[in-house]
Amino acid sequence: MSTPLLFAFPGNETLAACLAAGLDAELGEFEVRRFPDGESYVRFDSDVTGRPVILLATLVRPDEKVMALLFAAMAARDEGAHSVGLVAPYLSYMRQDRQFRPGEAITSCHFAKILSGAVDWLVTVDPHLHRHSSLSDIYTIPTTAASSAPLLAAWIGDNVKNPFLLGPDEESRQWVAEVARGSGDAPFSVFSKVRHGDRDVVITLPDSIDLSGRTPVLVDDIISTAGTMAEAARLITRQGGRAPVCVAVHGVFAGKAEELLMDAGVARVVTTNTIAHATNAIDITGLLARSTRSMLAP
Amino acid sequence: MSTPLLFAFPGNETLAACLAAGLDAELGEFEVRRFPDGESYVRFDSDVTGRPVILLATLVRPDEKVMALLFAAMAARDEGAHSVGLVAPYLSYMRQDRQFRPGEAITSCHFAKILSGAVDWLVTVDPHLHRHSSLSDIYTIPTTAASSAPLLAAWIGDNVKNPFLLGPDEESRQWVAEVARGSGDAPFSVFSKVRHGDRDVVITLPDSIDLSGRTPVLVDDIISTAGTMAEAARLITRQGGRAPVCVAVHGVFAGKAEELLMDAGVARVVTTNTIAHATNAIDITGLLARSTRSMLAP
Repeated sequence: MSTPLLFAFPGNETLAACLAAGLDAELGEFEVRRFPDGESYVRFDSDVTGRPVILLATLVRPDEKVMALLFAAMAARDEGAHSVGLVAPYLSYMRQDRQFRPGEAITSCHFAKILSGAVDWLVTVDPHLHRHSSLSDIYTIPTTAASSAPLLAAWIGDNVKNPFLLGPDEESRQWVAEVARGSGDAPFSVFSKVRHGDRDVVITLPDSIDLSGRTPVLVDDIISTAGTMAEAARLITRQGGRAPVCVAVHGVFAGKAEELLMDAGVARVVTTNTIAHATNAIDITGLLARSTRSMLAP
Repeated sequence: MSTPLLFAFPGNETLAACLAAGLDAELGEFEVRRFPDGESYVRFDSDVTGRPVILLATLVRPDEKVMALLFAAMAARDEGAHSVGLVAPYLSYMRQDRQFRPGEAITSCHFAKILSGAVDWLVTVDPHLHRHSSLSDIYTIPTTAASSAPLLAAWIGDNVKNPFLLGPDEESRQWVAEVARGSGDAPFSVFSKVRHGDRDVVITLPDSIDLSGRTPVLVDDIISTAGTMAEAARLITRQGGRAPVCVAVHGVFAGKAEELLMDAGVARVVTTNTIAHATNAIDITGLLARSTRSMLAP
């Protein structure tokens, strides 16, 4: 098979260079921009004819990115690419996984249908799987959901003394347990969480836990508005716990998320580089390269 | 057939009320908003089961609108709608109708494919047809492209004394001729235009025309950045012509378009209400209602 060509959408350049190296892929040249009227423009500068094309686009704030992504996939096919795959380190539209109210668009399914119609395969890291048990429930193309839990565990083991891991809700228990095991069998628990709307969440700390002598580590898959995590941090410090360390896979940081966490008195916020951000401290390039290689294998 | 339900996307409310009345359709209730992380949320409040659904969404700055539109179309089907049609008074992605440079995504074709896969029919007003001879070249669903030329002509006839119509380029000649005929057989001509890029256009006024005693009327299908129209206005006033009136179907007004036109000394800018804007003076509701009715007819 000819050498794959990797094209990085704007904002994915740093990850792209490392991923291309890890894949023995060539970094392709292409132009993605907006016309003054807001329409997207895409042009391949590298010749994709007969070559496997990898599009690298992390899908935070997806609506402003998806049209260019779809156009690129369609244009790559028009230009004779051998195949077109998508590496989306952060996969959007995973949270509306059922109708919470009648008449709602189940966008996880709709988005999966749109992407499945556009690319041949998909690689992502820790998609928010809750009511869908795996990506194959909704995606009709081959997918790989790489798990960053061992990397999170390793970072915590290396950087936090006497950690006590805390997950956001009951659903996260299994995942938090996995991270805790990898962090030198750290103790862990989860908050109880009741959600009343997009921004309105009430959480409570389990009664039985003993944080004395421990550094609380709040772990979650996504930091979005950070409302829940900030509230968790406040609950802990109010009860005399140490300032917690926050560790998440995907740093979406919607609105004033960072400010909210700082105000809540957290000691540090750490994320993986699925979304480029100042808090990135855990590198998922190797993970992405392995998953992508398995997709490209004949 | 049961009464159609018309759902207006944000920004289309004024047009929606008139269009629903003109169609004897019911105005449907739905919610379209964004989550803090930028993802779109769509929920139908009205029951669409068994009913023809009309989505009204003018597609200026399309990328921020298309995901919600696709989700709405998919959700309407999930909810058992009889059919799902799109009224897009302004249809985006019509200008990239070939590869101007190798490797370019021909977004007019790609966008047509996306919409054709999402809705059952499409009604629009004066799509920018240049190298595509009709929408059916690229759309695989039934489409109607309503012509607002008679409405533009009527407005000019009613509001401008002794008009002299000027189109932006040779390709517009036939359309300008049609508008001129309807404006009491006004004299008309077209500029010569050479485009060097998105924003770099050189135009020249035809030598032979006599604007004395006439009000120049610059007519075009779209005012986007308004660079060409502003330059045309300057050419006219520099040669002693009166301050021109600008009449366009679609007022996109990208960037500082309005400022540019004012600085160029135009007397007035007038658009149809395909895109809601302070310059709207020509109502296309009746036109849309007629075209939409023909789509709904069994």
